[in-house]
Amino acid sequence: MNAPIAPTHTLPCDVLITAAVVVTQNDARAVLRDAALAITGGVITAIGPRAELAARYTPVETIALPEAMLLPGLVNTHTHAAMTLFRGLCDDAPLSVWLSEHIWPAEAKLTPEAVRLGTQLACAEMLASGTTCFLDAYLFVDAVADAAQAAGLRAVLCQGVFDIENAGFKTADAALASAGALADRLAGEALLRPAIFPHAVYTCRRATLERCAAFAKERGTLLSTHAAETARENDDCLAANGQRVIPYLHSLGMLGPQTLLAHGVALDAADLTLLAATGTAVSHCPKSNMKLASGIAPVHALRTAGVTVGLGTDGAASNNALNLFSEMETAALLQKVASNDPTALKAGAALDMATRDGAQALGWPELGRLEVGAPADLCALDLTRPQLHPCFDPISDAVYAANGGEVVLTMVAGHVLFRDGAFLTMDYAALRRNFAQAASHLTAR
Amino acid sequence: MNAPIAPTHTLPCDVLITAAVVVTQNDARAVLRDAALAITGGVITAIGPRAELAARYTPVETIALPEAMLLPGLVNTHTHAAMTLFRGLCDDAPLSVWLSEHIWPAEAKLTPEAVRLGTQLACAEMLASGTTCFLDAYLFVDAVADAAQAAGLRAVLCQGVFDIENAGFKTADAALASAGALADRLAGEALLRPAIFPHAVYTCRRATLERCAAFAKERGTLLSTHAAETARENDDCLAANGQRVIPYLHSLGMLGPQTLLAHGVALDAADLTLLAATGTAVSHCPKSNMKLASGIAPVHALRTAGVTVGLGTDGAASNNALNLFSEMETAALLQKVASNDPTALKAGAALDMATRDGAQALGWPELGRLEVGAPADLCALDLTRPQLHPCFDPISDAVYAANGGEVVLTMVAGHVLFRDGAFLTMDYAALRRNFAQAASHLTAR
Ligand SMILES: [Zn+2]
Ligand SMILES: [Zn+2]
Repeated sequence: MNAPIAPTHTLPCDVLITAAVVVTQNDARAVLRDAALAITGGVITAIGPRAELAARYTPVETIALPEAMLLPGLVNTHTHAAMTLFRGLCDDAPLSVWLSEHIWPAEAKLTPEAVRLGTQLACAEMLASGTTCFLDAYLFVDAVADAAQAAGLRAVLCQGVFDIENAGFKTADAALASAGALADRLAGEALLRPAIFPHAVYTCRRATLERCAAFAKERGTLLSTHAAETARENDDCLAANGQRVIPYLHSLGMLGPQTLLAHGVALDAADLTLLAATGTAVSHCPKSNMKLASGIAPVHALRTAGVTVGLGTDGAASNNALNLFSEMETAALLQKVASNDPTALKAGAALDMATRDGAQALGWPELGRLEVGAPADLCALDLTRPQLHPCFDPISDAVYAANGGEVVLTMVAGHVLFRDGAFLTMDYAALRRNFAQAASHLTAR
Repeated sequence: MNAPIAPTHTLPCDVLITAAVVVTQNDARAVLRDAALAITGGVITAIGPRAELAARYTPVETIALPEAMLLPGLVNTHTHAAMTLFRGLCDDAPLSVWLSEHIWPAEAKLTPEAVRLGTQLACAEMLASGTTCFLDAYLFVDAVADAAQAAGLRAVLCQGVFDIENAGFKTADAALASAGALADRLAGEALLRPAIFPHAVYTCRRATLERCAAFAKERGTLLSTHAAETARENDDCLAANGQRVIPYLHSLGMLGPQTLLAHGVALDAADLTLLAATGTAVSHCPKSNMKLASGIAPVHALRTAGVTVGLGTDGAASNNALNLFSEMETAALLQKVASNDPTALKAGAALDMATRDGAQALGWPELGRLEVGAPADLCALDLTRPQLHPCFDPISDAVYAANGGEVVLTMVAGHVLFRDGAFLTMDYAALRRNFAQAASHLTAR
């Protein structure tokens, strides 16, 4: 008598996701065709040929995307999410008019609830354009944390610190106390990490900057700040402190591998050397720098010097979108025309900046790549869209041809948060209503 | 005895389209809220408050878009549509490598059928991103005309002319004969107009350029050519012809109100004066110029001098998308950073370039605006997308926040060609299959 055929011994997994193309961004930058990922507990447990993984795994859920390209979820290393409330409020104006006549009066009316709504809408915008992790710096950080937590995004949440009275705080002391409370609140959170963000050398006193640096060291958090955004910032810093911005930050103990500087536009050779020597990272925000006419960051020189450079959108009031697909393309195009060299900042470099390099810049290097052991943070592009044909080179298509509107699925830690236009962790219709009310209240004269 | 209440006397119309916002681009640049357009015979017959038009008209069909923004259909003043076949084939390379090792060998294998498929896919991409009219310059213009006609787009179709043997023609004579046949074929066509496009001063002999200029005058067509794309082009033209490109073209009788020059990057003050004095228009292609590191066109100076400047995407092999939303934003951002002035090329100016100014540049000035008597060419953006909140300034949102993926409806001459992701004039699934085969055949080694 014949024994029944033994069942194939398969492994369990939570999710098996299959796709036409998988851009891994692993060390070899492997791009797989007709591939799959197995995910358990929010972590990638296998990646390889679709047929092989389909035979090996018995998933609780299968997500079949036979006409999609998977990419690591994109990492936005600099934004002020709640500024979505002020998108389009004032454009094409000199910085002083923009700030003093429009942004500051509106910000003076900010409330925690408005910040929560603005951040929630920003989370929707980021999810719909493939971003899974962001660094935020703004006021009312508890409200920001509430919004990110509810949406399910991964984030580095910075307490903003100023020596200028604002809607959030009257003093830097109060801001530092709030930073401590935030770090306590987020202890043990898997997706949210606390950090501290003194606004800039021109809005924070020397002692405040030093206290922020000490806070980051004590609590083991990232330290981030706006730095060298314009040539004028260096001139002013020289006049006030006798040093350019980068050496001044260095003299305060603010540079190092736990520091991320936003912008880094106006850098000289000595600045580059100092950033490289200290292991300080830079968040490049090309669209904000162009829109505000701040200048062109020396991204090629920074990367050549060994500085880790991530990409950031800055806030929606100076961009005006939180879309890293658009930011990748702009970064690559801008370096080419600025350096008169069509080979400058190739597509692969721009994608690195938006994924693994951005993750490294945030001190979270396991993100931004699809490989075994990495968190299952990813996005999927719909390859049926005309602009993604003929797909000779998926990385070129992701950087130069995609606009972000092709994203059909976004996943963080194994959870699908966005699919086919729907936000699965939000009551999006209610959010739209409440957001519109908050925005019009803030900007009413 | 009471007479029955007389029925309201209403007017017939083919289509009544209602929307939350209508950006008219009329002379006053009116932006209407809660508005409607009545359309009959492919022409706008009324535009105004929704309630008023709904009471006044009895439409055959109503298209209600209560959460959309209507804009004039965008006008792409320079592309080589069929080059979608080569998208992503080679990026980030010096121009010589890109052309001689990749594009020319692939173009040598072109067939009319491949050009038809490539153009058809380009039409899909343009429709899905709100473009309703394009100027095309390439080989096998009859195949281009077939594709545009089938898709239902409006186009200025140029016969390309070279003194270099290519897959389309062995001689300029043959190309000129084809241009004549094209003009005969398109006589009486409402949506398609013929034109002639000598490739450039460095690929066409003096006599050929003169014959093209004569052709345009005789047949009353537009004359377009690549001009002053790089500084080197001027140097070479000076060496070969004793003049920079613009004066050289002028000496051949090629400048004037029926001439549109693509690129216009390397222009000096005398060139600007000459363009303005002759009424010559320019097609600005910022993304192509950035990607190929050609330089930054003096758009602000051109506009200030009174030169009409439209926007173009150039071909998908050097962009790599045919998306005018992305092109508008890039144009505006690039002028700001190049001129160190955040007030340079405001959102409204960029939208003008992509609509009414582009139409003017093509010699089709009734396009690019939504007003009574204008053709019903328009697109609709989905205002429920996060990036279009809070919609303080619809023009700013269209230029800076939209990425083109928000387009939910595109109409040409009153016919809906694209709606909610579907291409209504194409068997898109079959097109995708045939296009993929053609692209892989052309690039096989
Ligand atoms: Zn910032
Ligand atoms: Zn061209």
